[in-house]
Amino acid sequence: MSVSVAFLGLGAIGTPMARHLAIPEFSLAVWNRTAAKAQAFAAAHQARAAASPADAVRGASFVVTCLPTSKAVETLLDGPDGLLAGLAAGTLVVDCTSGDPATSQRIAARLAERGIGFIDAPVSGGVIGAENGKLTIMVGGDAALLARAMPVLKAMGEKIVHCGAVGAGDALKAVNNAMLAVHIWSVAEGLLALSRAGVKPEVALDVINASSGRSNSSMNLFPERVLTRAFPRTFRLALLDKDVMIAAQVARDEKVPSPLIQMTAELFRAAHQALGEEADHVEAVKYLEQMAGGEIS
Amino acid sequence: MSVSVAFLGLGAIGTPMARHLAIPEFSLAVWNRTAAKAQAFAAAHQARAAASPADAVRGASFVVTCLPTSKAVETLLDGPDGLLAGLAAGTLVVDCTSGDPATSQRIAARLAERGIGFIDAPVSGGVIGAENGKLTIMVGGDAALLARAMPVLKAMGEKIVHCGAVGAGDALKAVNNAMLAVHIWSVAEGLLALSRAGVKPEVALDVINASSGRSNSSMNLFPERVLTRAFPRTFRLALLDKDVMIAAQVARDEKVPSPLIQMTAELFRAAHQALGEEADHVEAVKYLEQMAGGEIS
Amino acid sequence: MSVSVAFLGLGAIGTPMARHLAIPEFSLAVWNRTAAKAQAFAAAHQARAAASPADAVRGASFVVTCLPTSKAVETLLDGPDGLLAGLAAGTLVVDCTSGDPATSQRIAARLAERGIGFIDAPVSGGVIGAENGKLTIMVGGDAALLARAMPVLKAMGEKIVHCGAVGAGDALKAVNNAMLAVHIWSVAEGLLALSRAGVKPEVALDVINASSGRSNSSMNLFPERVLTRAFPRTFRLALLDKDVMIAAQVARDEKVPSPLIQMTAELFRAAHQALGEEADHVEAVKYLEQMAGGEIS
Amino acid sequence: MSVSVAFLGLGAIGTPMARHLAIPEFSLAVWNRTAAKAQAFAAAHQARAAASPADAVRGASFVVTCLPTSKAVETLLDGPDGLLAGLAAGTLVVDCTSGDPATSQRIAARLAERGIGFIDAPVSGGVIGAENGKLTIMVGGDAALLARAMPVLKAMGEKIVHCGAVGAGDALKAVNNAMLAVHIWSVAEGLLALSRAGVKPEVALDVINASSGRSNSSMNLFPERVLTRAFPRTFRLALLDKDVMIAAQVARDEKVPSPLIQMTAELFRAAHQALGEEADHVEAVKYLEQMAGGEIS
Repeated sequence: MSVSVAFLGLGAIGTPMARHLAIPEFSLAVWNRTAAKAQAFAAAHQARAAASPADAVRGASFVVTCLPTSKAVETLLDGPDGLLAGLAAGTLVVDCTSGDPATSQRIAARLAERGIGFIDAPVSGGVIGAENGKLTIMVGGDAALLARAMPVLKAMGEKIVHCGAVGAGDALKAVNNAMLAVHIWSVAEGLLALSRAGVKPEVALDVINASSGRSNSSMNLFPERVLTRAFPRTFRLALLDKDVMIAAQVARDEKVPSPLIQMTAELFRAAHQALGEEADHVEAVKYLEQMAGGEIS
Repeated sequence: MSVSVAFLGLGAIGTPMARHLAIPEFSLAVWNRTAAKAQAFAAAHQARAAASPADAVRGASFVVTCLPTSKAVETLLDGPDGLLAGLAAGTLVVDCTSGDPATSQRIAARLAERGIGFIDAPVSGGVIGAENGKLTIMVGGDAALLARAMPVLKAMGEKIVHCGAVGAGDALKAVNNAMLAVHIWSVAEGLLALSRAGVKPEVALDVINASSGRSNSSMNLFPERVLTRAFPRTFRLALLDKDVMIAAQVARDEKVPSPLIQMTAELFRAAHQALGEEADHVEAVKYLEQMAGGEIS
Repeated sequence: MSVSVAFLGLGAIGTPMARHLAIPEFSLAVWNRTAAKAQAFAAAHQARAAASPADAVRGASFVVTCLPTSKAVETLLDGPDGLLAGLAAGTLVVDCTSGDPATSQRIAARLAERGIGFIDAPVSGGVIGAENGKLTIMVGGDAALLARAMPVLKAMGEKIVHCGAVGAGDALKAVNNAMLAVHIWSVAEGLLALSRAGVKPEVALDVINASSGRSNSSMNLFPERVLTRAFPRTFRLALLDKDVMIAAQVARDEKVPSPLIQMTAELFRAAHQALGEEADHVEAVKYLEQMAGGEIS
Repeated sequence: MSVSVAFLGLGAIGTPMARHLAIPEFSLAVWNRTAAKAQAFAAAHQARAAASPADAVRGASFVVTCLPTSKAVETLLDGPDGLLAGLAAGTLVVDCTSGDPATSQRIAARLAERGIGFIDAPVSGGVIGAENGKLTIMVGGDAALLARAMPVLKAMGEKIVHCGAVGAGDALKAVNNAMLAVHIWSVAEGLLALSRAGVKPEVALDVINASSGRSNSSMNLFPERVLTRAFPRTFRLALLDKDVMIAAQVARDEKVPSPLIQMTAELFRAAHQALGEEADHVEAVKYLEQMAGGEIS
């Protein structure tokens, strides 16, 4: 008999993740705030469109959530159609949201009171990683719960890493993304200064990428997205802003002086504010260009 | 007949670079502030130990300088034993110092008045790159001068990149190293916060290095030097501090708002001040650990 | 008949504040974590030393709390000896803690469920202001509650300002203190740079204090405490660190890019860490001096 | 017989300063890049409009310069109509430009070679101070030269302060103005966060200005210019940007870690870039408001 799984949150990353669960081993129910998405998913895959979070999770062994923020998950708990109305003791909630440790810990505590397990399990690898089932999944929570969730996680990801207690996955995801943000911004500062000093960005990247200053940003994002001015929309700036803020909060909660992460949080908040909700994360470069009154070229 | 070359500055990088010029194609004279170093070099290689900068460069077709700062090069110009006392019109000065554009431009202008060529040609690749003749050399200056210098440069480096006018090599080298500094510091902030939040640095790096936040620092320096607490002394913090300051100055001269580079300049100045002249560049991590009152572990 | 008032928290500021309530109009009970302090107070003034928070507040019309943090107040709520065990509907809690808005709002909500009023009412004016009853009191909360508390507030303070809803007093107190912190640090940077450039700090302050760059820090703190090297301990750095962090949090919660406040939060956290719990707030200057390797002189 | 004085630079501050020298004790020649201004001045006051810098200073005992930057003064030295073409040994140049120490020192050295004295003498007090002859004048240079210049300085200013060697006046002026910039920006951050948290800026300033966080900015600039949205144009943002940069440079030259001054330099550069050449210095507040997407209100 197949294992019953509920998947909540069919966004850009959630949808291809859920597809990997629409297989014979699992009996899948999906829910999405915009119901049409869930219905379209159910029409195309071996899955049931649930009418509410409570409906989706009723009878499920595993519940996978993939929402914009931990607060969105927390909000889903309550009410007559909420998760708590449908969840039974013994269920395991696998929260793939790029969340924040404090809220995850609060959610875990509320679920634990009812005998429901919780692990935070944010992912990296982007839409393509999700489509190929090659995500890295960062797990925070009890090792036994992680072991239990492994069949579900393995269906969606390739590298499953146990990071620590509840919130540890969130913390690591946020710090990774904060590094990404630091690198995007600092490469932009450097290339803009160089281009005004007469060094072409192609030349600069050719050297930097063979040298000690290289990063994923300089090796991939800038050649493919900034120098081409393509700026494809693959990961929203609004979400990276949120992630940097989470990392900044973790650093402060842990009393680590962290001027670069904190300053990057300020810069990405301002960029997000200026460029709006739909801008891609790499478009933060454009905000620096606005500040400086000129483009990298 | 062999080409006459002078090499000034037998430091950690300069010495292995000079060795590649102690070959039959070149007639090599070496000079160093501490004369014993030049004498030892001459005793071990096919080279003459010069008594002064003027003595070293007299009759040379090429002069290679490799000093701590552009100001040190500038200081060497004047006086009865200075470079200008020995340099003849038609000579080409190849300055491999990790210098600053403004001083290089001043030096170039003074030499040009006497018909002497100048290119700035800072290198990257470290001691090992210098020993293997595999340096990357970033050249600023006239293309024709670069073409002329190619045999000398090719003897020492593998990747020779024309970056732009005089100072462009300095600018690019400084920005590359500023990126390095930004990455060292930001990875340290992130790993320290995570380790306090219960995520082991090995686990964190395992994930980050497979993800979007990776950089040369996270992939190489932290696993090899920080997590091992080895902190080998390969490149002095004092020199990286200087390089970040040059990059910060370039950004300001070019009117590019650059909060991350500027803040990093402040942090590395403070770290340099606290840890002294002999500390390695990666030991900046220790300064953050002091600020935070605990180690990454 | 006299009004029954409880006062919890006989610290450096709390003690002189409580003294103004030990008057015939009020029937005063005092409580302090270290019981000896409460007993000494009761011995010296017209007041009763309570055995527990619950004991102190039983039957009180007004409860004044003056603790190090909002979290400390929150912690006092629960348990058999906690505030909630003694508080009756209709009581008004006046929290003079330099607290944080989010926690104050949580406390207010819990009290409201039981018909207990709450206003946040942090003070400024220091020990001397508290002794003279000349404090400024910043009140957040319902205007009718403030009106009711006025006799108690007027006994302790001179300027009573209604700032807004619950948390508004906390927010304003924190921002004021963040300005103080910004000024202390920035004056220190400026005077240290000037003193190294050959301008005596006395001369610099003489000019700045007659000009556009003056602040309370430059006009009072630096002449009296830094130039004299007296650094009297009047207000702990640990508390100012906390206040700057609250202001930084308010700015982030409100999505205001705030690089100077955020950076100041990092600097004061590092200074607090380096100088310990007993250091005075102005001793942050010493941390900059350590970073720079020299004194303002 | 009257003393011959030349005044170069009839800008917003220079013009009212020059008026105090158009008195019987002095025989005044004025020069301005836009000749019409000098002619209008000469028509209205007891002064001669000079055709060139050289013409203005020929035969003068004192030369007062009041230009936008030290570089502008330096540029004026050379050429057939330049200052050096007209200056005689024994003349004393009083440079009231808000200049930078390094350039002032270079100018002083060049003049000293010809027996010409130089003191840097930037002023504070604004247009009104200049009109009333109540400026504060910060002097760097030899005490004997200052003594000689005293009659000229006393005609324009009220408080004449000897700060140190050449450049010391510039350094102090720049640091004072950097403090002003820090205060403007930090008060804006604080008030914007508070206004979003429900605390009216009038209420906030009422409290802050009676408390430890007050500064000239909070006491004067914000009530008069920001809360009224008047933003009168009294001192250009472009000039304050320049001054903060000079202070930032002094701090770096003196190896003082100075995160707040450096960050403020970045912010004012960005604000200047965004708001243009004519914006007033207090309009930097508007740039923060743009970044934050909302006004202080």
